[in-house]
Amino acid sequence: MKSILRDHIEEIVQLTDAEFDYVLPYFTLKKYRKHQFVIQEGDRVPNDFFVLSGCLKSYYTDQTGRMHILQFGWEDWWITDYHAYYNQTRATINIDCNVDSELLCLSLHNREKLCAEMRKIEYFFRKKADKANVAFQKRILSLLSNNAQERYDQLLQLYPELFQRLNKQHLAAYLGVTRETLSRFNSSAK
Amino acid sequence: MKSILRDHIEEIVQLTDAEFDYVLPYFTLKKYRKHQFVIQEGDRVPNDFFVLSGCLKSYYTDQTGRMHILQFGWEDWWITDYHAYYNQTRATINIDCNVDSELLCLSLHNREKLCAEMRKIEYFFRKKADKANVAFQKRILSLLSNNAQERYDQLLQLYPELFQRLNKQHLAAYLGVTRETLSRFNSSAK
Repeated sequence: MKSILRDHIEEIVQLTDAEFDYVLPYFTLKKYRKHQFVIQEGDRVPNDFFVLSGCLKSYYTDQTGRMHILQFGWEDWWITDYHAYYNQTRATINIDCNVDSELLCLSLHNREKLCAEMRKIEYFFRKKADKANVAFQKRILSLLSNNAQERYDQLLQLYPELFQRLNKQHLAAYLGVTRETLSRFNSSAK
Repeated sequence: MKSILRDHIEEIVQLTDAEFDYVLPYFTLKKYRKHQFVIQEGDRVPNDFFVLSGCLKSYYTDQTGRMHILQFGWEDWWITDYHAYYNQTRATINIDCNVDSELLCLSLHNREKLCAEMRKIEYFFRKKADKANVAFQKRILSLLSNNAQERYDQLLQLYPELFQRLNKQHLAAYLGVTRETLSRFNSSAK
């Protein structure tokens, strides 16, 4: 399990065994059950979560009860309510588990302490944040400029495994379409 | 002019005079005219741009000729095609000037050199990237969960100055609505 985190960090920066042994205790392992909330709207958000196994989603439910999915999180992805985490305010979104999940929790205090103490880890988090920005910009442009069918095709091309792992309701809530619209895409693709 | 950059960095980390004098030569000043392209689709993207004065927009034009605005950039904001900049690939968006603009250009090479040489600057860019991530997540959630009228009201509340500084075509292209729809919001608000 630990090697998932090490491999993930080493995609950006190499660590010695001693360095990784120093990093690991800053994280706390937590196990969650399918459907369990990791964060609920209104909660404090002490942690960022690195996913060791499982699948989570962060989402907002509007006044009509419709779910809008901001992000999924699975093996070697990070997920939290970043606004609430960085600013130490209350959550405005929910995060829950689609399946049983194991997460490594990193508090903001530990993140900053690690970054201050280990130059390589500060470099790692800077590069991760830059990559996340690129991904978010792509998603914004896709939401602005592509119609629902194009967003569906793009997602299918980028992450074909999503279509096996997620149910139609969650796919629709991520793409910003109704489940009925999504069903039309499915049948037209057959 | 230089003080705009220093004030901006010092919102996150304090610099001595000597430190700032060391940082500044890594940037190159460039002046652009109203309507001039800073980046065109297909260009190489050597620089990230810190805006000293003026107003720019980054956008994508779809096959029907419709413009979709990803981001505006004005005094003390950063703007570039981040995917192309970080990955040193060709631009997929355009950036041009709404008015005459003065920019401080930072090449990726200089950014990485500065970060490697000055811990404070690495810290600064990590924190900037974290803040950008929060802003992008908000925009994604707004595009997913708010209708056009709600996005308009939200923008008016967050950035009232936008409505003085931008024409209706650009506001509409940022909000992801047609100009006709935007005109209805304007008249209903009067």
